[in-house]
Amino acid sequence: MTVATKVSAFGWVPDFARGNVRDLRIRWACEEIGRPYEAVLLDATHPRGPDYLWWQPFGQVPAFRDADVTMFESGAILLYLGEDDERLLPADPQARWQATSWLLAALNSVEPFLGSLVDMRLFHADQPWAEEAFATLRPQAERRLGQLAVALGQREWLAGAFSIADIAMVTVLKIADSMDLLQPHPVLTDYFRRGMARPAHARALAAQLGDFSDEPPVQ
Amino acid sequence: MTVATKVSAFGWVPDFARGNVRDLRIRWACEEIGRPYEAVLLDATHPRGPDYLWWQPFGQVPAFRDADVTMFESGAILLYLGEDDERLLPADPQARWQATSWLLAALNSVEPFLGSLVDMRLFHADQPWAEEAFATLRPQAERRLGQLAVALGQREWLAGAFSIADIAMVTVLKIADSMDLLQPHPVLTDYFRRGMARPAHARALAAQLGDFSDEPPVQ
Repeated sequence: MTVATKVSAFGWVPDFARGNVRDLRIRWACEEIGRPYEAVLLDATHPRGPDYLWWQPFGQVPAFRDADVTMFESGAILLYLGEDDERLLPADPQARWQATSWLLAALNSVEPFLGSLVDMRLFHADQPWAEEAFATLRPQAERRLGQLAVALGQREWLAGAFSIADIAMVTVLKIADSMDLLQPHPVLTDYFRRGMARPAHARALAAQLGDFSDEPPVQ
Repeated sequence: MTVATKVSAFGWVPDFARGNVRDLRIRWACEEIGRPYEAVLLDATHPRGPDYLWWQPFGQVPAFRDADVTMFESGAILLYLGEDDERLLPADPQARWQATSWLLAALNSVEPFLGSLVDMRLFHADQPWAEEAFATLRPQAERRLGQLAVALGQREWLAGAFSIADIAMVTVLKIADSMDLLQPHPVLTDYFRRGMARPAHARALAAQLGDFSDEPPVQ
């Protein structure tokens, strides 16, 4: 029996989250290599039940399943998909581990700074201290982006050829773009646009958006 | 010519950071498998120069080098070390990708919540809004820890046998422990203590602490 590739996603999210939910990373990787997958749509408006928490312990998306593995975390799933396909992760050891370094950098050294900043705007804007906290945290995020711009320099992609590192970093930079933090860095703006312009990204984005219903599920 | 394994670390950090700098993760992994390494000590009190930024684009530690690869990001280096040694990462595909999922979960789904919380205490405590921001962000971190406790349940380690996922998670939980957030979860407290009690952890910690000079370098 063949188990199709399954990726969990949400059936509805508020507007601000559309195009930003992390199953996009996996859809994008699958589109890059023409790997068919099936989205398993969850109700984001209710807590996930034990059957899903068994698959994804934090109730987040994406979780992933195919004939060989059941797993979770977008970064880990990208590594899994990359290992089988050089279009996602080069086989040459040095190139492969540089790409892996950059994948982790996107998720552990860039995303947290942008995430805590955007959370101030999205979830704590009603707090009297939110603006001041934003202003205090902002320089740290800006510094990271400056370092990233220097490191990227004139390269087209982070680790030589396009790889899962770029899928991670471009989706992370979406957060920066939403706060106009890319503008001071033409190198990053160009890199970001280059990533977004890939046909596989466009197909992945259309698939995610197409899976959202217009209205939240009836309570 | 054999290039010894090199791991970058700091030669001095303030007291609150001692035992928490991320080269500990790599030292720990090396100690688990008896792999010798050499610490390359950097001056944390001055900005890193271009020769180091070429190795680690954000100026952080650890960066890593051996005869085969030059790379960075503690999570990526753990994966690299794990791939060669089943004592760090099981070879069986399902076990391996579960461990990889948990490694990424530690770094992208748990650490950011604890990190932004502890940053309020360590770096923004002088701000009038820091306490309120802390109180607002705290429940999110607590929720993550609660989910982690449920997922861990009665298991000894996150993914069957001890693995790099546990090195990542135990070092992340140090942050939670420093804010007394582990106490409500005996399952996590026991897991954390089990990790800290491993002889390889003790050797790694002693090596990191032993590399710190008492005083910061003369300016």
